[in-house]
Amino acid sequence: MSIAVIYGGTRAGGNTEQLAERALNGLEAERIYLKDYDIRAIEDHRHSEEGFRDRGDDYNAIIDRALRHDILLFATPIYWYGMSGPIKNFVDRWSQTLRDADRPGFREQMKAKTAYVIAVGGDQPLLKGLPLVLQFQHIFGFFGTTYGGYILGEGNRPGDIAQDREAMRKADLLHVQLKERLS
Amino acid sequence: MSIAVIYGGTRAGGNTEQLAERALNGLEAERIYLKDYDIRAIEDHRHSEEGFRDRGDDYNAIIDRALRHDILLFATPIYWYGMSGPIKNFVDRWSQTLRDADRPGFREQMKAKTAYVIAVGGDQPLLKGLPLVLQFQHIFGFFGTTYGGYILGEGNRPGDIAQDREAMRKADLLHVQLKERLS
Amino acid sequence: MSIAVIYGGTRAGGNTEQLAERALNGLEAERIYLKDYDIRAIEDHRHSEEGFRDRGDDYNAIIDRALRHDILLFATPIYWYGMSGPIKNFVDRWSQTLRDADRPGFREQMKAKTAYVIAVGGDQPLLKGLPLVLQFQHIFGFFGTTYGGYILGEGNRPGDIAQDREAMRKADLLHVQLKERLS
Amino acid sequence: MSIAVIYGGTRAGGNTEQLAERALNGLEAERIYLKDYDIRAIEDHRHSEEGFRDRGDDYNAIIDRALRHDILLFATPIYWYGMSGPIKNFVDRWSQTLRDADRPGFREQMKAKTAYVIAVGGDQPLLKGLPLVLQFQHIFGFFGTTYGGYILGEGNRPGDIAQDREAMRKADLLHVQLKERLS
Repeated sequence: MSIAVIYGGTRAGGNTEQLAERALNGLEAERIYLKDYDIRAIEDHRHSEEGFRDRGDDYNAIIDRALRHDILLFATPIYWYGMSGPIKNFVDRWSQTLRDADRPGFREQMKAKTAYVIAVGGDQPLLKGLPLVLQFQHIFGFFGTTYGGYILGEGNRPGDIAQDREAMRKADLLHVQLKERLS
Repeated sequence: MSIAVIYGGTRAGGNTEQLAERALNGLEAERIYLKDYDIRAIEDHRHSEEGFRDRGDDYNAIIDRALRHDILLFATPIYWYGMSGPIKNFVDRWSQTLRDADRPGFREQMKAKTAYVIAVGGDQPLLKGLPLVLQFQHIFGFFGTTYGGYILGEGNRPGDIAQDREAMRKADLLHVQLKERLS
Repeated sequence: MSIAVIYGGTRAGGNTEQLAERALNGLEAERIYLKDYDIRAIEDHRHSEEGFRDRGDDYNAIIDRALRHDILLFATPIYWYGMSGPIKNFVDRWSQTLRDADRPGFREQMKAKTAYVIAVGGDQPLLKGLPLVLQFQHIFGFFGTTYGGYILGEGNRPGDIAQDREAMRKADLLHVQLKERLS
Repeated sequence: MSIAVIYGGTRAGGNTEQLAERALNGLEAERIYLKDYDIRAIEDHRHSEEGFRDRGDDYNAIIDRALRHDILLFATPIYWYGMSGPIKNFVDRWSQTLRDADRPGFREQMKAKTAYVIAVGGDQPLLKGLPLVLQFQHIFGFFGTTYGGYILGEGNRPGDIAQDREAMRKADLLHVQLKERLS
């Protein structure tokens, strides 16, 4: 059992990252910072004769790294009440992987995983972050991925998340769960 | 009164575009196809000393075009139960415009507008598209923009939307509303 | 194939009823007006030794009438952004029927049905009625009942619904669907 | 500052009650067990000439007790992915109080309060309880009541809630908040 964390934020060391690292609390994990890579928007060629074209970016390398792990932790700041653009572009490309002859079994692999969502925003995330939670519910439901849980945290300025006691405690509980799974 | 349509799709002439054009039905509108432009992900510098940096892409030109109009029609395919990556990147950049000294009054301008959402997807959009509708509710609520309405349509293969009689009729009704507003 | 309409409203001839009758438009249907019956709140005895007790009200007669039909149309005014109290009490009692030795196969019967929701409210039903739509999605999902669709209409004062052109047209489309199913 | 807890459950000492009492942890509060009272469904007479009629039940006494307090804690089991029938009937009657000449200022009183929701269910409450959270968001939004927070807990058989460590810790955090407010 092993963990991959997909970071969707565009700042280093932001509130979302702090909360996710609190959950990891030293556990080994593959950390993927999407902001450090070139991941382009999907070009929808599901219905073109020629099919999808390789976009020559970092996407395939990233999805291969993520798929090696049993547990996926999606850590995204809440931008405009949803996941960040970079993480959305990453997820959108899954439509391509579903038809990628070089990566057969994507759907089955995703079905076998457990996924968590950590999302931090500044404007009432416990209420206004709910559509994001529901969206991930539909995403994981598509594959049959187990939705292990989610944490919505509140933070605006750097470091604010430390003041969100509820989110911090939920991260501590998630840590216990993750540790049990790894052992 | 005038209309801007922001297209978030990555195919030309897709189902979402067909549904939006049915609503326009010949009405004059500024059509912005995000796929034809370079709009980068936001780099969150809300809290950096230097502030946001110009990203040297097409974003500012696009937002300026959109803001000239009273009615904004967001037309996006439903990718993974949310707006497409390109439209998400476009929306994310609003955080930059909110602090852009060259574009003061962004919030007030948005407040004065009426916005509509047209979204088409293949997997039970009337149910699984609801988080997207809720997300736009929060987005428009942030500004005080009037949420004029939304249409969720069903389509997967090119042209499918024509079979969604309910969505087509809602587009016809939206056409009547838009026409009344323009006159 | 036959239809049962479960009316949750507490007024005769209200907006919700008008909209549902527009969808029926003369089709034969068993109309159940919950307001005319005594349906008590559930007493949760799932975990008592003695199990559920007969409450001596009209519930069992009503659920038997509803279950005879293939199509269930739940027509409820939106009270406080949810289904009305009478319809909630009716639905709550399903927990009793699930354990009622005199009514075996309730779950399987519900799975075989198609259900529709018609809900009318006065405060932005297209947006604020969405939690109600989502709730029914979970309810039908529990049984595997097909969620045929829903109509959210706007109406406050008696007769207002006639002004909601979109809802009226959706009712007309539902009529076509219902008619096809019955034939 | 004082607290009223409105219990919507139909069992004594159920999981919801245990979770709410954990949050109170000895704090003084007015506990209202709706199951012990006769609260009838609303009869919608907003538009009748004669207006609402007194229903001769316990509702008015109950609402008067609740309104004396600054903090309202709504504690309901999740029945069919929503609040219980008794609590729904109680809330539905607010439409009557809004027009009750003997209880002027209901809207203003509610606006001044802070409300919390505690809800416990057996079928993935963290995901399938979200429509209930959204519904209360609209309800409190109607009045301008401050939505202080919510706790979704998981429990099916009596006592299960004690195993939901996350919910228990959230209750402990709520206790700290409530205690601070009272002092």
